[in-house]
Amino acid sequence: MVMLLQLRTWPEVEDYLARSQGIIFPIGSTEQHGPTGLIGTDAICAEAIAKGVGEATEALIAPTINVGMALHHTSFPGSISLRPSTLIRVINDYVTCLARYGFTHFFFINGHGGNIATLKAAFSETYYHLADLNIPNCDRVRCRVGNWFMCGSVYKLAKELYGKEEGSHATPSEVALTQYIYPDAIKTASLSPEVASGRGIYSAADFRRSYPDGRMGSNPALATPEHGRQFYELAVKELSDRYLEFLKS
Amino acid sequence: MVMLLQLRTWPEVEDYLARSQGIIFPIGSTEQHGPTGLIGTDAICAEAIAKGVGEATEALIAPTINVGMALHHTSFPGSISLRPSTLIRVINDYVTCLARYGFTHFFFINGHGGNIATLKAAFSETYYHLADLNIPNCDRVRCRVGNWFMCGSVYKLAKELYGKEEGSHATPSEVALTQYIYPDAIKTASLSPEVASGRGIYSAADFRRSYPDGRMGSNPALATPEHGRQFYELAVKELSDRYLEFLKS
Amino acid sequence: MVMLLQLRTWPEVEDYLARSQGIIFPIGSTEQHGPTGLIGTDAICAEAIAKGVGEATEALIAPTINVGMALHHTSFPGSISLRPSTLIRVINDYVTCLARYGFTHFFFINGHGGNIATLKAAFSETYYHLADLNIPNCDRVRCRVGNWFMCGSVYKLAKELYGKEEGSHATPSEVALTQYIYPDAIKTASLSPEVASGRGIYSAADFRRSYPDGRMGSNPALATPEHGRQFYELAVKELSDRYLEFLKS
Amino acid sequence: MVMLLQLRTWPEVEDYLARSQGIIFPIGSTEQHGPTGLIGTDAICAEAIAKGVGEATEALIAPTINVGMALHHTSFPGSISLRPSTLIRVINDYVTCLARYGFTHFFFINGHGGNIATLKAAFSETYYHLADLNIPNCDRVRCRVGNWFMCGSVYKLAKELYGKEEGSHATPSEVALTQYIYPDAIKTASLSPEVASGRGIYSAADFRRSYPDGRMGSNPALATPEHGRQFYELAVKELSDRYLEFLKS
Amino acid sequence: MVMLLQLRTWPEVEDYLARSQGIIFPIGSTEQHGPTGLIGTDAICAEAIAKGVGEATEALIAPTINVGMALHHTSFPGSISLRPSTLIRVINDYVTCLARYGFTHFFFINGHGGNIATLKAAFSETYYHLADLNIPNCDRVRCRVGNWFMCGSVYKLAKELYGKEEGSHATPSEVALTQYIYPDAIKTASLSPEVASGRGIYSAADFRRSYPDGRMGSNPALATPEHGRQFYELAVKELSDRYLEFLKS
Amino acid sequence: MVMLLQLRTWPEVEDYLARSQGIIFPIGSTEQHGPTGLIGTDAICAEAIAKGVGEATEALIAPTINVGMALHHTSFPGSISLRPSTLIRVINDYVTCLARYGFTHFFFINGHGGNIATLKAAFSETYYHLADLNIPNCDRVRCRVGNWFMCGSVYKLAKELYGKEEGSHATPSEVALTQYIYPDAIKTASLSPEVASGRGIYSAADFRRSYPDGRMGSNPALATPEHGRQFYELAVKELSDRYLEFLKS
Repeated sequence: MVMLLQLRTWPEVEDYLARSQGIIFPIGSTEQHGPTGLIGTDAICAEAIAKGVGEATEALIAPTINVGMALHHTSFPGSISLRPSTLIRVINDYVTCLARYGFTHFFFINGHGGNIATLKAAFSETYYHLADLNIPNCDRVRCRVGNWFMCGSVYKLAKELYGKEEGSHATPSEVALTQYIYPDAIKTASLSPEVASGRGIYSAADFRRSYPDGRMGSNPALATPEHGRQFYELAVKELSDRYLEFLKS
Repeated sequence: MVMLLQLRTWPEVEDYLARSQGIIFPIGSTEQHGPTGLIGTDAICAEAIAKGVGEATEALIAPTINVGMALHHTSFPGSISLRPSTLIRVINDYVTCLARYGFTHFFFINGHGGNIATLKAAFSETYYHLADLNIPNCDRVRCRVGNWFMCGSVYKLAKELYGKEEGSHATPSEVALTQYIYPDAIKTASLSPEVASGRGIYSAADFRRSYPDGRMGSNPALATPEHGRQFYELAVKELSDRYLEFLKS
Repeated sequence: MVMLLQLRTWPEVEDYLARSQGIIFPIGSTEQHGPTGLIGTDAICAEAIAKGVGEATEALIAPTINVGMALHHTSFPGSISLRPSTLIRVINDYVTCLARYGFTHFFFINGHGGNIATLKAAFSETYYHLADLNIPNCDRVRCRVGNWFMCGSVYKLAKELYGKEEGSHATPSEVALTQYIYPDAIKTASLSPEVASGRGIYSAADFRRSYPDGRMGSNPALATPEHGRQFYELAVKELSDRYLEFLKS
Repeated sequence: MVMLLQLRTWPEVEDYLARSQGIIFPIGSTEQHGPTGLIGTDAICAEAIAKGVGEATEALIAPTINVGMALHHTSFPGSISLRPSTLIRVINDYVTCLARYGFTHFFFINGHGGNIATLKAAFSETYYHLADLNIPNCDRVRCRVGNWFMCGSVYKLAKELYGKEEGSHATPSEVALTQYIYPDAIKTASLSPEVASGRGIYSAADFRRSYPDGRMGSNPALATPEHGRQFYELAVKELSDRYLEFLKS
Repeated sequence: MVMLLQLRTWPEVEDYLARSQGIIFPIGSTEQHGPTGLIGTDAICAEAIAKGVGEATEALIAPTINVGMALHHTSFPGSISLRPSTLIRVINDYVTCLARYGFTHFFFINGHGGNIATLKAAFSETYYHLADLNIPNCDRVRCRVGNWFMCGSVYKLAKELYGKEEGSHATPSEVALTQYIYPDAIKTASLSPEVASGRGIYSAADFRRSYPDGRMGSNPALATPEHGRQFYELAVKELSDRYLEFLKS
Repeated sequence: MVMLLQLRTWPEVEDYLARSQGIIFPIGSTEQHGPTGLIGTDAICAEAIAKGVGEATEALIAPTINVGMALHHTSFPGSISLRPSTLIRVINDYVTCLARYGFTHFFFINGHGGNIATLKAAFSETYYHLADLNIPNCDRVRCRVGNWFMCGSVYKLAKELYGKEEGSHATPSEVALTQYIYPDAIKTASLSPEVASGRGIYSAADFRRSYPDGRMGSNPALATPEHGRQFYELAVKELSDRYLEFLKS
C-alpha cells in the first residue's frame, strides 16, 4: 500500500525515519496543455506515477507540488506559475524542514520540463543554506529529479506510437496518461493538422504568438487510455529502480 | 459536477471567465495533528469542502495549496512549512497570474488557523503589487479567507458534541472530518487523558515543550466518521453562501 | 517614571536585563483617519499607552514604530505604509538584535488593526530565523501583540458612549484619545451624516471608492478629550496586567 | 508653528501639496553612545533639528525613523539596527507611497553617520523602482541627506569647544544637544581618560574589542546643555537654508 | 576587429543599435579545476571564444561575468560563487538595463555547466519581469545559452583526443583551451591515475569527499596548447553560426 | 609578477593563504563616460591599478567586478547597472565564500564613485551575515574600499593639470588613464565647450536632462596617455601603501 505523508501521523513518520531517510515529492505544473489537454496534466501524471513508485518501493510520498515554473504559459487562461525565485524558496523551505528530522534523500518525480532548471538551481541554493544551519548530517542531503517523460522506456514507446507527432508540449504521451488516470475527463476538439514547433520558448506573449493553440508540435488526438496505462507502467518501473539506486548513494 | 481547474482545458477556462470571475483555492497545511491525526488533515478538509462548495456554486476550484504556514509544528517529524515571507510570494504569484486573465474574486477555503495571518498579509502585498502592473481592472481584485472550522454552524456543533474537549489543535471536529473522507485511514493510539492547553504558540522548540504529543487541549478520540459528515455538510452550506455573497461584492 | 530605551545608556540597559528580559514596542501607523482624525492617530495612541504601561510596570519602552501596514489607505495623501514583507523584515531585525542581548519577551502595544496579521506572520518568521542562529535561549523568545482598542474595558466604554457610531476606522474612541494627548490639535470639519461601512478592505483604490472620506462607519464628532482620558486609563490598566502576566509565561 | 504629518489630517496634506511638494524625514538610530550618551541620541537630535527646520521653512515633517543602520554597535545591549537591505526597502516603501500623492522633494535630516551609505544606496534603488511605476512626474523625485553634525558651522563650533576630544562617536557635541533637549536625562559616569580611536569600523564583535566602552576618541564629559543650544541653532539655520535651496532644484 | 562594449562610447552603442539588437555575454565561473587547472578556466574560455565570435559576427561583446554558480566547488580554496537567487537577480538587472535601450537578443557564451540551470531560470524570471515594465518590444526579448563545451564539433574532438579521460570537470579540453590562451600559465602536478567519477553533485562538503582533488573523471595532463587552438576554432565557428541564426529568430 | 586568482590553481591558493589572508577586488562599472570616454572606463582603471598594486605587494587579485551601481547612467545606451540590493548580495556572496577558506582582509580597488555607498552598505550586511555562520575568525573579516581617483596624489595632479575642467564624471584624469592602458582605443568627438555641472544626481531620466552628453563639468579633451601613466603610477604607489597598512590592521 502506498504511504502518503498526508495520511500518516507524526509518530508513524518517526518510525519510517528509523528505517529510511528517503522521501518522494511529486512535482507538476498548472498550465495550458493545448485545446484538449488538462491544465493539471503535469501534476496529475507526476502524482500518479509517484504513488506507483511509492507502492513499489515503500517510499513515503509527500504532497504534490501542483504549481511549478510555467511562466511561459501565462498568456493562456488558467495557467498558474511561480516565479523561479519563488519556487527556489519553496523547495528550500520544504527540504530544510524535513532535513531537520533526518531526511537526507529527496527524490522529485517531475511532470514538467519547465521545472527542471529551477529545481536544479533550488537544490544548489538549498545545500548551501543547509550548510549554514546546525543540522546533523545536513551535508549528506541529496536531491534528485526524476522526469517520467524522459525515462528511456517511455521515450522509446512514445516514438514508436507517435513518431514526430509526439511533439514537445501537450504531447500524446502525457495526454494518454491523464486519460488512463481520469477516463471521465477525456476532451475532444478539432485540432488543426498544422501545428507550430521549434520556435523556442521565451516570454509568455511570445509563446502565444509562436504556438497559438498551446501545442508544440504535438498531435494529442493520437492518445488513448490504453497507451496511458503502458506509459504509467514503464515510468513506475524505471523510476522505482532509479529511486532505490538513489537511496543507496 | 465539481469543476476542477486541473481537469479543465484552457478554452474551458476562457468560457468560464465569460460568466464568472471567481475562483476558489483550498489551502491547508502539512503538519502534525497529534498521535492520531493525519499530517494532511488541514489540506484534506479544505480540499473536500472546497469541492463541495464548487459543486453547490459552480465555482472553479484551483489546485490545493497543501503546505502552508506551520513553522511552530516543525519540531514534529513530517511537518512541512513555508516561511511567511515565502507564502506571501506564492499567493502573490498565483493571484497575479490569474488576475491577468480577468479573475477578480479569490476565495481561499482554509483548513489551518496558522495560515490566516500570513494570508491576510499576502492579500495586502498582492493588491499593492497589482496596482503597479498594467492589468485592466486589477484594482477590482478581491481576496477573502473562509475558514471552515470557524463557520458558526460548525463551531456550534463542535461545542455540542465535544464541549471543551474540542481543544484548538488536532481537534475531534477536524479528525472526524478526515475520518469521513478517508475511512480507511482512521488511526488509534492511547491518548493521555491529560492534555496541555493555553500555553501559547511561539517557536517550534517551545511548542513541543508546551504540547508534548502535539495536541492542544483536544480529545480526538471522540471523533467519528458520522460527525465528520455533519461537519462537512454544515461547512459546505455555510461557505457556499458566503462565496456567492462574496461574488456579488 | 517611565523608562524609555531612547533615554537610557547601554550600561543602564545591561542593568535592566539583569532583572527583566521584557521590552515593550509601541507600534502604530501613519495613515488617514478621516476628515478630522490625525494621520498619526495610531502611533500617538500606542505610544502614549505604552508609556503609561511602562510607568505602571517598570518595563523598558522601545522607540515607537510609527509606520506600519496601511497599504489600503494609500489613496489618501499623507498615508505611508510598509509592504507586509518589509514589515516582517523590520520586526525580524529588531527582535534578533535584542535577543542577542538576552531579551526574551517582546510585547507590541498596537494601535492599528491593519498591523495585526503582518505582526503575527513576522513573529513566526522571527522565531524560525532565531533558531538558525547560535543565540543562547533563543528558543525562549516570545512575542505578543496587545491591541489597546480591543481591550475588553475599552470596547465596552466605546459601545456605551457611541453605540454603532463607533464604526471601525477613524473611530470616536481613537480620536478622543488623541484629543486627550494633543488637546491643541483637535480638528473639526463638517462630516457627512452618511458614512460608508461594511464594504470590506481590498486595494487602496477600492478602499477610496468604498469609503470616500476615509471613515469606516464612524462618527468622530462624538469624541471628547475627557473620553480620551477614560480610554487611556482603561487601556493602560488592562495592558499593564496583560504585560505582567506575559512576563511570567 | 511646526507642521508635523502625524498631527495633520489627509485634507490638510492635500492642501499642503498644492503649495509645496517637499517633505522632511528625521532619521536617527537606536544605538549605544558610550557610558553616558543616550541610546536615542541620533534620533533625538535629528528630530529636534527637523522640527526647528520645519518651523523655519514651513515644511511638513514626517515621523522620525528611529532605527537606522547600526549593525556595528550591536554588541552593546540596547542597540537596535536594520540590515542595510531592510533599510533600503523601508526608504523605498516610504518614498513610493508619498510620490504617488505628488511629493517630489525628500529631505532626510540625519543624525547618524552610519546611515549615510545605506540612504544613498536606497535613493538609487528607489528612483529606479519609481521609473517602473506609472506615477506622473516620478522621474522628478529627488532625495537628499542633510547631516546636522556635518554642517560647516556645527563642525567649526565643535572644534573650537572640544578640539580633538570631539572624537567621532558619542561626541560631546551630540551629547550636548541631547542635554539641551532633555535636561532631565543628563547622565554621568567616570570615563576613562584614555579612549580608543582610529581603529576602523568592521563587525560588531570587532567594534567592541576596538572600542570597549563604546566611545570613539571622544570626551562627552565636556558637553553642556548651553553648548547644545548653540549646536541646535546653528544646525537649524544651516539645514533650513539647504532645504529651501533643495526645494528650488 | 572585435567590438567590446567596454571599449566603446555610448554614441557608438547608439549607432550599433541602429543596425543590430544582439549582444553577447561571456559567462564563466571562478572555481577550482583540479590540481593543475586554472581557477578562472571557465571565464577565460568563455571570454576568448566570445571575442572570436564577436570578430566573426560583428556582435557587441559585453563584459565577462566572471563569477557564476559554483556553490558545489566552495570547499576548495579560491572558488567563488553566487547563490542561484543572486545570479538570477544579476541577469535580470543586466538584461533589463539593456532592453530599455532596444537590445532584444541576448546570447550567453557559457563556460561552466553549473551555470546552465540558473541561467535558464533567470531568463524566465527576466521575461516575466520585463512584461511588467513599460518598455516597447520588451516581449520580443530573447535570451539563449551557448555552451562552448557542448558544441558538437568540440565534443567530437574531445572524444577523439581523450576518450573517457575527458571526464566532466577539469577536463583536458578546457585545460587545453586555457593553455592556448595563456601559454605562460601552464601548471603541472603529479596527478593520481585514479580519479573519482560518477558520484553526483550535491553539497560542497559532499563534493570534496567525492572528488578529493577536484577532478571529475578527467586526465588534464593530456591537454596541449595545440589542442586548445583546435577547440577554440571549432567553438568559435559553431557558436558564430548559432548566434547569427539566433539573431534571425 | 602579479598573482591573479584566475590564473592560479586551488593548491596555489591554499599555499597563498598560509602566508597572507588578504585579497584585492578590482571593482568598476559599465556606464557611459560622455561622448569620448569608454563605457568600461571605471572597470579598466580599477583593474589596471589593482594589477599594479598586486605586483608591488604580492597580493592575490580577484576577478574584476565589471558592473557596479550605475543606475543614474541608465538613460545612455550601453550602461549596465546592478540595483544596490543586488550588488549587496553579490558582495556578500563573494566575501562569504572566501571567508570560509580563511581570507580576512578584502580590499576593493574602486574606479566608480557611485559604488562607494553600496559597497559600504554591503560590508555592514556581510559582517552581520558572517556572524550568523559557524566560520572560525569570521568576526575578524575586514573590508575596505580604496578609490584610486580619490588618492591625494592623484587628486593633486588632476587639479594641476586640469583645474576645474577635471569635473566629476568623464574626467580627463580617468580618460587619460584609459588612454594609457588602451592607446588604440582613443576616441575623439567635438565636445561642446559648455558642460553642465552641479545639478545633482537623481533618477536616470533626470540625469540625462541635467547632463545631456553624459559629462559632468569635465573636459576630457585635455587627457593624454602620458598623463594617464602618471596617474597610474601615483595611484599604484598610494594604494599599495594603503593595502599593506590595511593588512596589518
